[in-house]
Amino acid sequence: MKTMAAELFDELRRRTADGPGVTRECYAGGESEALALFREFAEAHGLHCRADAGANLVVSLPGDDGSRPALILSSHADSVPQGGNYDGAAGIVAGLLCLVRLKREGIRLPGPVRVLAMRGEEGAFYGAGEVGSRSLLGRLDPRHLDARRRGSGPPLREAMAAAGIDVAKIVRGEPLADPAQIRGYLELHIEQASVMIARGLSAAVVTGIRGNVRHRRIVCRGEAGHSGAVPRELRKDPVFAVADLLMRLDVHWTALLAGGADLVMTTGIIGTDPKDHALSRIPDSVSFGFEIRSQNQATIDGAYALFRSECDAVARARGVSFEFDDRIVAEPATMDPRMVARLLQAAQDIGLPGATIASGAGHDAAIFANAGIPSGMIFVRNRNGSHNPHEAMELDDFMDGVNLMFTAVAAGL
Amino acid sequence: MKTMAAELFDELRRRTADGPGVTRECYAGGESEALALFREFAEAHGLHCRADAGANLVVSLPGDDGSRPALILSSHADSVPQGGNYDGAAGIVAGLLCLVRLKREGIRLPGPVRVLAMRGEEGAFYGAGEVGSRSLLGRLDPRHLDARRRGSGPPLREAMAAAGIDVAKIVRGEPLADPAQIRGYLELHIEQASVMIARGLSAAVVTGIRGNVRHRRIVCRGEAGHSGAVPRELRKDPVFAVADLLMRLDVHWTALLAGGADLVMTTGIIGTDPKDHALSRIPDSVSFGFEIRSQNQATIDGAYALFRSECDAVARARGVSFEFDDRIVAEPATMDPRMVARLLQAAQDIGLPGATIASGAGHDAAIFANAGIPSGMIFVRNRNGSHNPHEAMELDDFMDGVNLMFTAVAAGL
Repeated sequence: MKTMAAELFDELRRRTADGPGVTRECYAGGESEALALFREFAEAHGLHCRADAGANLVVSLPGDDGSRPALILSSHADSVPQGGNYDGAAGIVAGLLCLVRLKREGIRLPGPVRVLAMRGEEGAFYGAGEVGSRSLLGRLDPRHLDARRRGSGPPLREAMAAAGIDVAKIVRGEPLADPAQIRGYLELHIEQASVMIARGLSAAVVTGIRGNVRHRRIVCRGEAGHSGAVPRELRKDPVFAVADLLMRLDVHWTALLAGGADLVMTTGIIGTDPKDHALSRIPDSVSFGFEIRSQNQATIDGAYALFRSECDAVARARGVSFEFDDRIVAEPATMDPRMVARLLQAAQDIGLPGATIASGAGHDAAIFANAGIPSGMIFVRNRNGSHNPHEAMELDDFMDGVNLMFTAVAAGL
Repeated sequence: MKTMAAELFDELRRRTADGPGVTRECYAGGESEALALFREFAEAHGLHCRADAGANLVVSLPGDDGSRPALILSSHADSVPQGGNYDGAAGIVAGLLCLVRLKREGIRLPGPVRVLAMRGEEGAFYGAGEVGSRSLLGRLDPRHLDARRRGSGPPLREAMAAAGIDVAKIVRGEPLADPAQIRGYLELHIEQASVMIARGLSAAVVTGIRGNVRHRRIVCRGEAGHSGAVPRELRKDPVFAVADLLMRLDVHWTALLAGGADLVMTTGIIGTDPKDHALSRIPDSVSFGFEIRSQNQATIDGAYALFRSECDAVARARGVSFEFDDRIVAEPATMDPRMVARLLQAAQDIGLPGATIASGAGHDAAIFANAGIPSGMIFVRNRNGSHNPHEAMELDDFMDGVNLMFTAVAAGL
C-alpha cells in the first residue's frame, strides 16, 4: 500500500509540476490532469468511476449501484500556483487506498463508501474557496461566479461551464448533488501549520475548522504627486495609509490574542499599479487583499468590524479612501462528535495516540458540516506548512492516517 | 510668442500621447519624438541644430560657431510613464522661444546662448535620475548603466548605446561634454508642488534643490505559509514587516519635521510577487522602493541611517530580512547667488514680484551646479503637481517665465 501511494504521488507530481512546486488550477488543466490520473488508478484496481454534476470524480466499489446514501471519503484535486504535492491530493489518495483495501479484503459495510475527488477548493485563482463543495451543496453565492481569474482574467463561470457544469443551476441556488445521498463525509488532509510536529503526532483527529472573512481586492486611493515636491502635510499617500492600517490592526490582533481569542489576519497580496507606479511618484492607489480567520464566528465579526472602523479612521487621518469588493465569508465548522469519537476509537485500535487538533485552514469538510452532514477530518503531520513547494509529508505518517481512516470505515463509520 | 508656444505644446502632446497623459521614455521613442519636434521647430525658425555626444539636441543662433563657452538654456525632453506635457518640455520650449526672440530682435550678447534639450532626466524607467546631465559631466556612476528597464527589462547601457552614445566613455568616468564650454546653466521648469499657487506667484526664482537617496528595490523576505494555519507568533510576514518599517519611519519623519528639518520619504513602488502571491498565502517576500529627499545633506544622511537601523530592528522583531540594491544618491544643490540676483533684477524689470522658492524635486540644474557650473532655475506655477496626467500650467504663467528668462539673458546673464 505504501509503495502504491509513493508511485501515485510521484506520478501526480510529475504530471502537474510547475517549477519547484505543482500547479493544479481549479476547473482547468492541472486539476483535470490530477482527476484523470486518479481515474486511471481507480479503474486499474477494478473500481468504478463517474463524474458528478460538479465535474468531480466519484469512485465506488463494485456492487454499489449508487442508489443508497454513502459515506464520502474526499479531498480536493486542485492546488495554489506553485503549491505542494500533498495539499488536497493526500486525502484523495487515502480514500482510493481505502477502497482498494476494502475491495481486496472483501469487507462488508453497513452502507456504500465512495471517494469524491473534488474540484475547486483553493481560493488562489478566483478568490472564493471551496467552490466545488459549495456548488454541490447549493451553498455557493452566485456572485462568486463573476469572480475573475487572478483578478482580471475570464470569470469563474466560464471555467466551470467549460468543465461541463450546469452553471444556471448554481445561479438558481440549487445544489448540484442531493445532500440526502451523503450519510457522512470524511477528509484526510496534511496539517498546514507545525502543531503536530511540535506535539510529535503522525495523525490526529480534527475537532473544528476556522472560518474566515475576506476581501480579494481593496483599493486605497490617495493622490499622486512628485515624491520630492509634495510636503508631508499635503500628502495623501496610499502606501503609508495601508501601512498605518495594518499596524493599527496588528495592535488589535495582539490584544485579542492576549485576551485568549483565536485569530489570524493576512494580507497575501499587495501592490502599486505597475502601469504607472514609479520610484519618484507618490502613487495614487495601492490595492491589497485582506483576510481574517478564527474558529469563533463572534471573533471574526468583531475583528472585521475593527478592520472597517480602522479603514475609516485611516481614511480621515490620511486623506485617502478605501474601496471594497464583495466580502467573502466562510463559517467556522464543528466536526461531528460521534465521528470524532469513532475516529479516536480507531486510533486506539491501531495503537496511535488519540489526539485531537483544530484546523486553522478552511476545508471542504466545513462546507459539508455546515450543510448538516456529519463530517470528520484526519490530519497528517507535514513540515514547512502548505501553499508552497516545500511542504513535506512523510509517507509513514501518511500511512498512519490511511490506516486510521480504513480502520474507522471498516468498523462501520 | 504665446500662440507659438501653444501650438508647439499641442503638437508635442499629440505626438507623445499615452492614454490621458504623455509617455516620453528616456533614450527611446517618446523622448526621441520630442527632440525631433524641437529640431523641426528650431530649423523652421532659422536656428542651427546638432546632436551632442549625449545624443541631446543642441540649438544655437546663426553665427555661433560653437567655439566659445555658452550660457545653456535647458531642460529635459523625457517624462515619466503617463506623465504630464510640461514637466521638462516647458524649459526647452522656453529656451527655444528665447532664441527665436533674440534672433528676431538681433540682440547682441556677451557670449553665445544655446538651448540644450536633454535626454534621460526622469528616474522612472531605470531608477537613477539625471542620467543625461550626469553622463555629460562625467558624474554618472557606471553601475547605473546596468540598471534594468522597469526592473527586469534590458539595461540602460543598451538604450544609451542605441541612441548613439559612446558608453565606454561613461564607464571610464570621462565626461561626454567639455564643462569648460559651459559658462552658465539656466533651466525653466514647472513647480511640482502647490507653493506658488498658495503664494500667488506666476514665476519664481529657485535658490536650492533637494538632494535624495534611493533604493529602487528592497526585498523583505519572510516565510511563506498558509494564511489560516500559521499562528501570529510563528509568522515571518514580510507585508506586516514593511508596514511596521514605514510606520516607524513615519514617526521619525514627523519628529524631524517638528524639529524644523526639510524632509520627505516615499515608497512609490511596492508589491508581492504576482507569480506566486495569493489571498490565502502569507507571502515569502515583498519588494519595495524607498526614497528620502532633503535640501540638507546631513538630514538625508541622518534619515538614511534611521531607515537602515529600523530595517535591522524590524528584521529582529519580525523574523524577516531585508536585501538592498545599490544605493543611488543625488546631492542637494545651491543655485549660483549671482545668477539668482540677476534673475530677481530681471523680474523687477518686467514688473513681476521678485520671489524666491526652493525646489523639492531634483533637476539637471543640481548636477550642473554640483559640477561647479554657475546654475539657476525659474519655476512656473502649475496645478496638480507633476508626474501625472493632470499637471496644469497656464500659458500666461509660462509666458511670464519665458519673459523673465529672456530679460535676464538679454541683459547679459
